[in-house]
Amino acid sequence: MGSGSMDDAGASLSAQMGDMGRAAKAAAQALRLADAVARTRALRAMAAAIRADAQAILAANARDVEAARATGMAPAMIDRLALDETRVEAMAAGVETVAAIPDPVGVETERWTRPNGLDIARVRTPIGVIAIIYESRPNVTADAAALCLRAGNAAILRGGSECLASNLAIHAAVAKGLAAAGLPEACIQVVKTADRAAVGLILGGLEGAVDLIIPRGGKSLVARVQAEARAPVLGHLEGLNHVFLHASADLAKAKAIAVNAKMRRVSVCGAAETLLVDSADAQRLLPPVAEALRDAGCELRGDARARSLVPGMSKATEEDWTTEYLAPIISVAVVDGIEGAAAHIARYGSAHTDAVVAEDPAAAERFAALVDSAIVLINASTQFADGGEFGFGAEIGIATDRLHARGPVGAEQLTTFKYVVRGTGQTRP
Amino acid sequence: MGSGSMDDAGASLSAQMGDMGRAAKAAAQALRLADAVARTRALRAMAAAIRADAQAILAANARDVEAARATGMAPAMIDRLALDETRVEAMAAGVETVAAIPDPVGVETERWTRPNGLDIARVRTPIGVIAIIYESRPNVTADAAALCLRAGNAAILRGGSECLASNLAIHAAVAKGLAAAGLPEACIQVVKTADRAAVGLILGGLEGAVDLIIPRGGKSLVARVQAEARAPVLGHLEGLNHVFLHASADLAKAKAIAVNAKMRRVSVCGAAETLLVDSADAQRLLPPVAEALRDAGCELRGDARARSLVPGMSKATEEDWTTEYLAPIISVAVVDGIEGAAAHIARYGSAHTDAVVAEDPAAAERFAALVDSAIVLINASTQFADGGEFGFGAEIGIATDRLHARGPVGAEQLTTFKYVVRGTGQTRP
Repeated sequence: MGSGSMDDAGASLSAQMGDMGRAAKAAAQALRLADAVARTRALRAMAAAIRADAQAILAANARDVEAARATGMAPAMIDRLALDETRVEAMAAGVETVAAIPDPVGVETERWTRPNGLDIARVRTPIGVIAIIYESRPNVTADAAALCLRAGNAAILRGGSECLASNLAIHAAVAKGLAAAGLPEACIQVVKTADRAAVGLILGGLEGAVDLIIPRGGKSLVARVQAEARAPVLGHLEGLNHVFLHASADLAKAKAIAVNAKMRRVSVCGAAETLLVDSADAQRLLPPVAEALRDAGCELRGDARARSLVPGMSKATEEDWTTEYLAPIISVAVVDGIEGAAAHIARYGSAHTDAVVAEDPAAAERFAALVDSAIVLINASTQFADGGEFGFGAEIGIATDRLHARGPVGAEQLTTFKYVVRGTGQTRP
Repeated sequence: MGSGSMDDAGASLSAQMGDMGRAAKAAAQALRLADAVARTRALRAMAAAIRADAQAILAANARDVEAARATGMAPAMIDRLALDETRVEAMAAGVETVAAIPDPVGVETERWTRPNGLDIARVRTPIGVIAIIYESRPNVTADAAALCLRAGNAAILRGGSECLASNLAIHAAVAKGLAAAGLPEACIQVVKTADRAAVGLILGGLEGAVDLIIPRGGKSLVARVQAEARAPVLGHLEGLNHVFLHASADLAKAKAIAVNAKMRRVSVCGAAETLLVDSADAQRLLPPVAEALRDAGCELRGDARARSLVPGMSKATEEDWTTEYLAPIISVAVVDGIEGAAAHIARYGSAHTDAVVAEDPAAAERFAALVDSAIVLINASTQFADGGEFGFGAEIGIATDRLHARGPVGAEQLTTFKYVVRGTGQTRP
């Protein structure tokens, strides 16, 4: 019967995912005893295996691309999905970068002695089992595997169904790296089915096996994960980023930063989507900055005050303030000082990355205090929102939640900690 | 109509709680601009107001105690609820302790400069709005209010319905302290109704106003919060704590630590509930330690191997391994080495606090590496699991979740962070 076989398939998937959870938990426990040397050896072997398997990875990716074209996927999305030899080499080099960064596990971040002689150390430890749910870009499979392993975590990876073949081919290389270092294969697992029910099972926590869920993708994916997850979530929401030009801004810096923040690469999460201009000096600042943006090929959509200063600017609707364009379009609002800018950002932003351009240091610092985003920049482009630019080596993405980790999530952010208290027989009076 | 008025009441409570959420969010924003001096002034004024209001607080508490007696509440629970002049003074002194600890907000925990001149600082910031759901002990109202304010957070406090009058009287003193420092009253709000539907509304996140929910109480409360919460949770679960006697243990230390961990105070979350003894030397260790525990008035319940070594020990059931007795009872199991101890702890423990007694340092360190609890002690009593004993000044409780904060939660653990990046006009190439 139709419903019978669906139930059977559901039960089978559920059993399969439960097995993955148990295997991941056992692998995480094994990783607690593996040392940094073994993890580094595995990462180097992974990079070598990705290079050695390049043709197999490209062949699998070609099948994904062909299938995506057949469904009529947009060219920009196809470009995100497609690999070539350069991209495979970049993937291997990325894993090597992670192999070279300092191992965060076991690092003492604090240590002090109490008057009774107890020696208290705060020590970084792996989180345990991390499930990552992501879309497009097959290189995330290699990046996420490498960062989770560097931090001593077992990973369950669930990429987009449109790049399943690519992800499985990359995972085969990852598995070779683990084997070369004598680590359990279940340290890094990829969900082998395109069945979307697998996502629901992961969000259910796989019978308590999942310690952290990281969604990396569009607004609807992250919202679903945050609503349904039965395990802690580290959300990577879109970057609804603002550049605020304070009345004290230097015009040359304002032009350079606004154009770079919007136009350097419009498709990255660190790109600016809204330009805010201080009403106290908008006449001086907005027209030339708008001209520079237009010269760079950017469309401007403004509120009434912005349009009164820049002829021919189209009208911004309420929806524009909450739209991550990922395109050469920017919304523009004139706001009343730092408070006005901070209020706009609090109302419409995603707490990702926001910048102020100001020569008055007190104004800049006040903006940095008032704006509650993961990254606040003073006189610099929002496009610096990137783990590599922060010196973290690599990143899973930019966390936009408020707890545990914010901003670029590298290996260190994929650890937690415990207290190790060393005594000589102390009892509490 | 009955159902009509219930719906009306539900709608009214929902509106009232929504107002609380909005007021808390506005207060949290005001707190971002208040400096440490104002917060310290408010905390000192709170302590003074608690002392000045002592008679009103005691009168309200007497009403709670009377009502609790009328419902037949157990004497041990009445004792947790009841205040006297000493306890009110301790509450005021506790708030003064928090006023004296270093203010965590704005502290730079890391700062570095990139090759391009960008100056990146990681700065502690308030979390925002914290909702704390707790049971019994009215002093938590003062402690939680003080710690949240020290860390620059707005708080929504929901104590047990059995101490509502006490909590409201304490809150009146807290409000006087806020007013004395010119801070908004909504920085610290107490839910004014005993209606349990209020908890459900808080778990729903109050329309996105709540940034963190902290449940502090029994297993069923914490489980409900973790299942239903639509905002991040920092769980404070029971302490199912173990003391493991390794084959290398010094017998005198083993006796002293086991007796202290179990019997110093049996009702605290840091009390030990299970004694694990290494099979490699159980004959030497278990009988005298069991005798010392019995001499201290403790009942022992053992597995087969433990009972074979200690005549007259009653049989431990599967349920005993997962029971937080909070009473002079301890379960006892003989396990095979560190791996056996770690496996028992991973299966039955609550990742709170576990101790090893061992003279062999390599064995002790291996235990510390394998056991994934918030606090792992070597040759010291589990009863040191306490914010004061760690030097944190005060604590909300001991966090047993894996993310954001583990172990004692003081003011520092009630902060998050952001990156402030200072440039001189940098754009990304």
